Amino acid sequence: MYDLIIIGGGPAAITAGIYAARKRMKVLLVAKDWGGQVVWAPDIDNYTGVPNVKGMDLVNKMVVQLKENELEIKEGEEVTEIIKKEDESLEIKTKNSSYSANALIMATGRTSKKINAEGEEKFIGKGISYCAICDAPLYRDKIVAVIGGGNTGVNTALEVAKYASQVYIMGYRPEPPADEYLHHEADKNPKITFYHNTTTLEFKGDKFIKSFVYLDKNTEEKKELEVDGVFIAIGSIPNSTLLENMVELNEKKEIKIDCNNTSSVKNIFAAGDVTDVSHKQIIIAAGEGAKAALNAYNYLNKKKGE
Amino acid sequence: MYDLIIIGGGPAAITAGIYAARKRMKVLLVAKDWGGQVVWAPDIDNYTGVPNVKGMDLVNKMVVQLKENELEIKEGEEVTEIIKKEDESLEIKTKNSSYSANALIMATGRTSKKINAEGEEKFIGKGISYCAICDAPLYRDKIVAVIGGGNTGVNTALEVAKYASQVYIMGYRPEPPADEYLHHEADKNPKITFYHNTTTLEFKGDKFIKSFVYLDKNTEEKKELEVDGVFIAIGSIPNSTLLENMVELNEKKEIKIDCNNTSSVKNIFAAGDVTDVSHKQIIIAAGEGAKAALNAYNYLNKKKGE
Repeated sequence: MYDLIIIGGGPAAITAGIYAARKRMKVLLVAKDWGGQVVWAPDIDNYTGVPNVKGMDLVNKMVVQLKENELEIKEGEEVTEIIKKEDESLEIKTKNSSYSANALIMATGRTSKKINAEGEEKFIGKGISYCAICDAPLYRDKIVAVIGGGNTGVNTALEVAKYASQVYIMGYRPEPPADEYLHHEADKNPKITFYHNTTTLEFKGDKFIKSFVYLDKNTEEKKELEVDGVFIAIGSIPNSTLLENMVELNEKKEIKIDCNNTSSVKNIFAAGDVTDVSHKQIIIAAGEGAKAALNAYNYLNKKKGE
Repeated sequence: MYDLIIIGGGPAAITAGIYAARKRMKVLLVAKDWGGQVVWAPDIDNYTGVPNVKGMDLVNKMVVQLKENELEIKEGEEVTEIIKKEDESLEIKTKNSSYSANALIMATGRTSKKINAEGEEKFIGKGISYCAICDAPLYRDKIVAVIGGGNTGVNTALEVAKYASQVYIMGYRPEPPADEYLHHEADKNPKITFYHNTTTLEFKGDKFIKSFVYLDKNTEEKKELEVDGVFIAIGSIPNSTLLENMVELNEKKEIKIDCNNTSSVKNIFAAGDVTDVSHKQIIIAAGEGAKAALNAYNYLNKKKGE
C-alpha cells in the first residue's frame, strides 16, 4: 500500500514526484511515457530559469532530476482502470499489475486531437503527423501544410519552416486566433502562407500523401493543394477518461479542481493540463504539480491524525 | 499609460514579466531588488528543470531571461504608494516618479521576521544576520546559533554548518515543525544540535555579539549560550502593506486571490508568496506569476472589447 500514486509523465507529474519524495511519502509514479505535450514543443523561451530550451531537452533534465529522489517509478506502464475501494483507498490497474494507495494525483495531461477528415487514418505516418518536433526534419525542401491556425498550429508551422521550403497554415476561423506574438513571427517568415476560414475535407495520395482538399469558406469553393506532408495541430483533449465516472469534469472533460488541486473526491488530486486550471503552460503545470503533492501530503497527515 | 504594471523582483514577478511581454502588452516591471526570498536559499533541488542550483544563481538566470523580452524595467525603485483612480486605472508612486496602468500584478513576496528580543537591533551586522547564504562563510570554525526550528531555521543551520564548527538550532516548539526530510538531514549532521521548546530573550556582547540568553521552557530556567554569531530564521511576513486598504487580505495579511490570481479588486492581480496560495515554493510562485499575467491579459482584452 502506497501513501500516494502519481499517474503521468509530464511536468506536473514529475514535479509532484519530486515534492512527494522529499516529503518522504511512500510514492509510486506510473508514467506511460515522459514529457507529455512538452516533447512536441520546438523552442521554449517561457520556462523561467531554463531559457531557450527544446521541449525534449527540458523533459530529459526533469526526468534525471526526478530520479535523484527516493520514489518508485514504473515507466512504460499504462493505467487501465482506477477503482475506489470501500475503505476509500484507490486501486490502480495496469495491464499486468495492480497497485493501491491512500491518495492519487492525476497528472495525465492531454492528447492531440484528430481532425476526422477522410484519409486521415490511412496517411498517418505516411505524410500525416501530429508531432512537428518528431517529424519536421523529414520535410527538408518540401511543401507542407499545417492544419490549425491557433497557437499549436502556428508553433508547428514555425518549426516545420526550419526545414520545409513552403508551409501553408490552414486556419478554421476567419481571423487568426494565435497569440499576437506568435502570429507576428509567422508573418515575418517568407516560407509561411496563411489560409484563413477553411475546413479540411479529404487527404489524397497513393502510398504516401500527395494533396488535400479543403473548403474555402469565403467563397464556398472546394480547393485542392499539393503537399508532401501534413501536420495536424488543432489542439488536444484532456486524458481524464479513467476518472470520468468518479470525479467531476467540466464541459471540456477537464478535471475540476479547487485552488488546492483537490478534485470532487477528497483523496484524488489533479494537476496540469488534464485539469481546468486557467492556462495550459509548462511552468504552470510544474507549479500545480508541487501544490498537488503538498496538499496530498497535508491530506494524508490530517487523515493519520484522525 | 501602461497596460500592466508588475511590482516585485522574485520568481512570480519575473515570470509574470516574461509572459506579459510575450503577449505584447505594454508592461512596466518595478523591482526594488531581484530574487526576493530565493537569494537566501543555499541549495535548491526542487525547482523542476534546474537541479541543484544556488538561489542566487537561479535568480540570475531568471533575470537574464526576463531581460531578453520587450518590457520596461525599473530596477532599484521602491513603490511607496498605490492609488486607485476614478476611472479604475491605478497610479503607482515611487520616490521620484509616478506610473499609471490599467492593471496591476502585485508580486512583492515576503520579508524576514524579526524576533524582537533585547539587543537584536544593536547587533544586526555585528553577529546577527537574517541571511545564511550571505553571511554563513563569515563563521568558518565558529560557534553559531540559529533561532528558529522550522524549515527556514533548519535550512539555515544546514547552510551555516558548511562553515561553522558547531550550530545550535533554537526551536520555539517542543517538537520540530520542520519537514521530516530536512530534519533528518540536520540530525545526521554531527555539527548540529537541537534545542527544542525555547524562547530567545536577549543578545549580549560588546562591539560584537558574544552570547544570548534563552528560556528553557521544559524547566522554566534561563540559560546562556556563548556564540560567535546568530542567524534569525523564524519565517517571514507578506509585503502587502501597499494594498492593505484596497484589497482583501487574510488573517496572515496575505492577499486573498481566486484560482485565477484575481484579488478582490478586478484589475489587481497577485502572485507568489505575498498571496494566500497554499504553499510558498519557488516553482509554485513561478507558475502563479504566469497565471497572473495571462489572466491580466484576458481581463484587459475583455475590457477593450466592452
